Amino acid sequence: MSPPTDLTRTFGNFIASTQWDQLPDRVRHEAKRSILNFVATAFSGCREDAVEQTLASLLAFSRGGQATVIGRTERLDALSAAFLNAASGNVFDFDDTHLRTVIHPTAPVAPALFALAELRSVSGRELLLAFTLGVEIECRIGNAISPEHYGRGWHITSTCGCFGAAAAAGKMLSLDAERMVWALGGAATQTSGLVECLGTATKSLSVGNAARNGLWSALLAEKGFRGPAAPLEGRQGYFNALAPSAPNWSALTHGLGDTWELLENAYKPYPGGIVIHPVIDAALALREKHAPASEAIARILVRGHPLLAARTDRPHVTTGREAQVSVQHSVAAALLFGKAGLDQYTDVCVLDPAVLALRAKIEVEQDPSIALQGASVCIEMKAGETYTTTVAAARGSLQRPLTDREIEEKLRVLAAGWRAEDVQPIIDAVWNLDRSEDAGAFLRLTVPRGSH
Amino acid sequence: MSPPTDLTRTFGNFIASTQWDQLPDRVRHEAKRSILNFVATAFSGCREDAVEQTLASLLAFSRGGQATVIGRTERLDALSAAFLNAASGNVFDFDDTHLRTVIHPTAPVAPALFALAELRSVSGRELLLAFTLGVEIECRIGNAISPEHYGRGWHITSTCGCFGAAAAAGKMLSLDAERMVWALGGAATQTSGLVECLGTATKSLSVGNAARNGLWSALLAEKGFRGPAAPLEGRQGYFNALAPSAPNWSALTHGLGDTWELLENAYKPYPGGIVIHPVIDAALALREKHAPASEAIARILVRGHPLLAARTDRPHVTTGREAQVSVQHSVAAALLFGKAGLDQYTDVCVLDPAVLALRAKIEVEQDPSIALQGASVCIEMKAGETYTTTVAAARGSLQRPLTDREIEEKLRVLAAGWRAEDVQPIIDAVWNLDRSEDAGAFLRLTVPRGSH
Repeated sequence: MSPPTDLTRTFGNFIASTQWDQLPDRVRHEAKRSILNFVATAFSGCREDAVEQTLASLLAFSRGGQATVIGRTERLDALSAAFLNAASGNVFDFDDTHLRTVIHPTAPVAPALFALAELRSVSGRELLLAFTLGVEIECRIGNAISPEHYGRGWHITSTCGCFGAAAAAGKMLSLDAERMVWALGGAATQTSGLVECLGTATKSLSVGNAARNGLWSALLAEKGFRGPAAPLEGRQGYFNALAPSAPNWSALTHGLGDTWELLENAYKPYPGGIVIHPVIDAALALREKHAPASEAIARILVRGHPLLAARTDRPHVTTGREAQVSVQHSVAAALLFGKAGLDQYTDVCVLDPAVLALRAKIEVEQDPSIALQGASVCIEMKAGETYTTTVAAARGSLQRPLTDREIEEKLRVLAAGWRAEDVQPIIDAVWNLDRSEDAGAFLRLTVPRGSH
Repeated sequence: MSPPTDLTRTFGNFIASTQWDQLPDRVRHEAKRSILNFVATAFSGCREDAVEQTLASLLAFSRGGQATVIGRTERLDALSAAFLNAASGNVFDFDDTHLRTVIHPTAPVAPALFALAELRSVSGRELLLAFTLGVEIECRIGNAISPEHYGRGWHITSTCGCFGAAAAAGKMLSLDAERMVWALGGAATQTSGLVECLGTATKSLSVGNAARNGLWSALLAEKGFRGPAAPLEGRQGYFNALAPSAPNWSALTHGLGDTWELLENAYKPYPGGIVIHPVIDAALALREKHAPASEAIARILVRGHPLLAARTDRPHVTTGREAQVSVQHSVAAALLFGKAGLDQYTDVCVLDPAVLALRAKIEVEQDPSIALQGASVCIEMKAGETYTTTVAAARGSLQRPLTDREIEEKLRVLAAGWRAEDVQPIIDAVWNLDRSEDAGAFLRLTVPRGSH
């Protein structure tokens, strides 16, 4: 089977022609939820080392003054701001997840639009529509090539994200279908990102570039910068180079305009790997109900889908970043502190003797009868009692999504050091984006003033 | 067979430890020839549309003032200048060719160094050494994955060039082996570029990015920006994602430090596709000897290696860019004008009625007994005579390399509009680079002043 004929052109037509009126209310609202969740994680990441280092470097090259970096006072050129916001939002992997592909959809797409919203005058509706279309293209390409693409070593958030950023920025610039094809061509020849780099600072380069290069491709296309007619499906194009031998071609266009990938987006209550989330839920529930003293615990048995053990059975971890994918660390910290936030995934917490002692008592068992979004935790006390809790679907899963209030609360927690009266206007501005004539205005609210 | 253990570390050690004294004289001189040839082609490309458009766009985002764009008065930030010089030098594919891989080695590597030489104080020897090492890494990676990598759609100049730029810039920054590995990791996760984009403006994005992103990776690594230990050979690293199923692993390190890829570098006398060059030589020789009047020609038969017909049998072309890969156009223009320079590959020349009339008389025949660097041209006159010339190896091939004087002349021709007395100092400065304490000085000579 071959790729759909004129695929890129089909995408170009779809992006150029789709209007706000065609978006269902639920999709419009999900766009706001995704953006609010993104702003929360950008607050958490905006002072992480990789962000600090790229910011310091880009400041030396940037014209400056054009666009906001969320949570920071420095203003950079639009391309650099897009890079930095994408890196900030994704650096802790605490951002949203398109579960079918494990793409973090918002990080490459929204920052391209944020930067553009400060360069040009655009309304909140234009931003929400462009964002929705960018995520649609990004995740449809991902659906077609998952999971083999990631399996070959491609960091799918970065590679597909660049298309999402180009599509979204192109929509915000009102590109016609032909120019949209050029923008997608510019993205195709700039997509990159390797899984090998995860866990190191270099991960942020490809995520940031996805936003920057997608935005730049659209800006160049607007000026007539030509690309090939078929960058995706062409004989020497994107799919031939980066896709597995048998992509799911129908996933690219089946139901285009009728179904919306944004409705498959999930938001994390905890910064750890998403397969650990039901385990954390169970551990927190057990603590709430039984408050087991750590030294009185003999053993803790975690049972879950085989992928849980495959990806997260890591009793020995030494850094906060590694701990994010350790089920032992996550359970120990949740039981000891009653929380599983960023504070529980610092290097200091990982080396805490109490955490180490409890981690050593935790074992993981595979149970193929348990769904990926479920888990069971059993605490065996030295005195003989056992406490068991089973979670069918984790908080934050599609079956049990975070509520709007929970996403708001996530932002309040991650905007550490901010006063409540300075955070509330950001929350209000995102919920009211579809009534704003100036989509860029809310970004200025994310800049620390005075006491922050 | 697996990739060499600790490959990236081996490269890191090699780059960090190699000194000027270890470079044979012939290699040092070839580095100067490559740079002189590059400056020539950058002059030719610096006003091409894709360069004009990216320059205009980057000016809006750039701090400016840091670094020279060859042939232009605008000064941009170092990253943007690296992008633009790489794009300028390569845009017409008139730059150098590493024949085994078809990599254009200098375009991604030299511009990273040029920009750095204006940011920091470095000597000409440091620049020549860094350049040589960058080309070595770039072409060795290319040797390992050619020709399948290009065949899958990867624009090998861009993908391998990013490693070359990172290695070269890292050397100029005196990175130790560990930081060099981080720089190569930053490059690995930023390499991109699709063959599908050739012939359009978007080609220049990946070529420019190779220089920019390689340079940036090295600058970040200098500041401690960490990457993975094995970005090339790691399980989810570069080779797994971008290389064919069976790379030529031994090409990566066999003879490292003893043989030099730069000695395999070739310089084009004509901007057309390199397989057309022996045909052009033959056509020019026939014109010189017989001066056949165009209207008196009945038929022209070109015979060459099967790849000649496969790649360049294009009697009908409509743009200068297409004409660069048309053997018919090249022969017709060479016979009519006695030249095959950029002026013979303009849209105007392609549509010239005299050229069209002659093109229609030209046929291409495959002859597997002829080497790729050879060709034979036979002109059959209406009056009955036939004139035949056979070329064993084209001008500019490794068997018949351009002389130093011919490369100088290429620069004089391509610096169109420049006075001879302004070009000569550039030529002198490149030949004397190994005696210069300020490698950046010669770049200022490439900026037009006054009457240019």
